Amino acid sequence: MNLKYFFNRATVREYSDREISENTLTQMIDAASHAPTTGGMQLYSVVVTRDNVMKNKLAPCHFGQPMVTNAPIVLTFCADFNRFEAWCKASCAQAGFNNLQSLMSAILDVTIFAQQFNTIAETNGMGCCYLGTTTYNAQEIAEALSLPKRVVPIVTLTVGYPKHEEQILTDRLPVEGIIHHEHYHELTKSEVKQLYAAKEALDVNKAFVRENDKVTLAQVFTDVRYPQESNELFSKKFINFLKEQRYI
Amino acid sequence: MNLKYFFNRATVREYSDREISENTLTQMIDAASHAPTTGGMQLYSVVVTRDNVMKNKLAPCHFGQPMVTNAPIVLTFCADFNRFEAWCKASCAQAGFNNLQSLMSAILDVTIFAQQFNTIAETNGMGCCYLGTTTYNAQEIAEALSLPKRVVPIVTLTVGYPKHEEQILTDRLPVEGIIHHEHYHELTKSEVKQLYAAKEALDVNKAFVRENDKVTLAQVFTDVRYPQESNELFSKKFINFLKEQRYI
Repeated sequence: MNLKYFFNRATVREYSDREISENTLTQMIDAASHAPTTGGMQLYSVVVTRDNVMKNKLAPCHFGQPMVTNAPIVLTFCADFNRFEAWCKASCAQAGFNNLQSLMSAILDVTIFAQQFNTIAETNGMGCCYLGTTTYNAQEIAEALSLPKRVVPIVTLTVGYPKHEEQILTDRLPVEGIIHHEHYHELTKSEVKQLYAAKEALDVNKAFVRENDKVTLAQVFTDVRYPQESNELFSKKFINFLKEQRYI
Repeated sequence: MNLKYFFNRATVREYSDREISENTLTQMIDAASHAPTTGGMQLYSVVVTRDNVMKNKLAPCHFGQPMVTNAPIVLTFCADFNRFEAWCKASCAQAGFNNLQSLMSAILDVTIFAQQFNTIAETNGMGCCYLGTTTYNAQEIAEALSLPKRVVPIVTLTVGYPKHEEQILTDRLPVEGIIHHEHYHELTKSEVKQLYAAKEALDVNKAFVRENDKVTLAQVFTDVRYPQESNELFSKKFINFLKEQRYI
C-alpha cells in the first residue's frame, strides 16, 4: 500500500508569493468535481476570491484569521440547490428540496468536493487551510459573495504554495480509539484517559494549557476555543440563515 | 500537475471475493485520520461491519441496496461527540456542544475523514460506494450498531476490490457551471439549459428518462429518486433523532 502522503500531510497556514494561475485552479476544481456526489447531482458551487478588497470583506467573517488575507486564493465552498432547482424549473420538474435531508445531501456533496480539492492541491505541491468558521457567519459571507437564495457557505479553504519547507504534523489519537468492530463500544473513564494521554503529554499542548491559564487540555477546548455561549450564539445565527435559505 | 487519478476515478458497486485484512483496513483508517479535522478534535468514529448477520440488519436501513450485503466491508462513519465529551468529563472540563454548530463541526470532520478513506482505498486498488441513505434511517442504524448518545451516523462506504476491470465514469457538469469568480452569478434559463445539455444528451440518461416514464431528466430526480414527500418524511425522522442525540 502507498499511504505515505496521507500520513505526512499537514495544514499550511503561510504561503509564498508564488501565484496559482487561473488555468491551474480551474483544472484542479474540474478534477475535484469528479469526486463522488449524491445521485450525480453536484449540489455545490465554489466562489473564488483573489481580489484583496473581497478578502478584506471576508476576513472579519472568519474572525480575522490571517490566512484569509495572506493566501493568494480563498475558496468558499457552498451547498447549492439554486442551480439544480433552476434546471428543474427549466425542465418542468417540481422540486421538493426545501428540507433538512436535501441540505444534508448538499453538505455531504460540498464537503467531499472540498476535501478532494484539498487532496489535489496537497499532492501537487500546494497547501491549504480549512476555515471551520464558515457556518458561524454564513449570512455575512453570503452578503459579501452575493450568494442567492438556496446557497449556503459550508466550508472555506485558503490555498497557496507553502512559505516554509518544513511541515508541522498534527497529532492524532491512536487509531483504536476511533474504530469500532460490529458494535460501538463506549470507552471507560480509564480507557478515555489512556487514549488522550499521548496528546496531553505533547510539549505543544502543555504550552497551550499554560498560555490559556487552564488546568487541563480539554478545558482549552471547552472554555477558550469552543465555549458553550459562543456555540449557541452561532447556532442560532446559522438556524436563522438556514430558515431564510428555506432548508429548515 | 498530476490529476490523472482524480479525473478517472469511479464508484465501485460490485466487488470480487478478495478479502481486505484487518491490518490493511486499520492502516487505511489510521492514514485517513490524518486528514484535516476541526481544531484537532477528530469528532468522528467509524463502525466496521464484516459479519453477515450485521450486514443483513443494515441492509433495510439502506433500502436493500445490494452493496451492503455484497461488499466485504461496510463502514458507517459517525459524527461523534461521545468520546470527546467523555474526555472533557474526565478532565474537569464543562462541555457545551449540544447545538447545531458543534454538530456541523462533527459532520465536516467525519465527511472529510470518509472522503480521505475513499481516496486511500481507490488509490490502493480498492473501490468504494457511498450510501447517502445513512441519515434517512439514522435511528435504525444507531440501533443496529449500538450507537450511544451523541453519535450520529452520517455516511456509509461499502469497500472491496472491484469485480470488474472496466470502470463506468460518471458524467459531470462543465466546470464553468460550478465556479464563481469573486461574486456568485445566477445563471439565466438559457445558460442553465446549456449547462445541462450534454448530461441530458447521454444515452444512459435518455434511457433513464424512458425507463421511468418521464419527459425530462430532471423529473426523474424530482418525481422518482428524491420526491418531496420522501424528503420531508426522512427529514422529520432525522430531526427527531438529532433531538434525541441532543444536537438540536
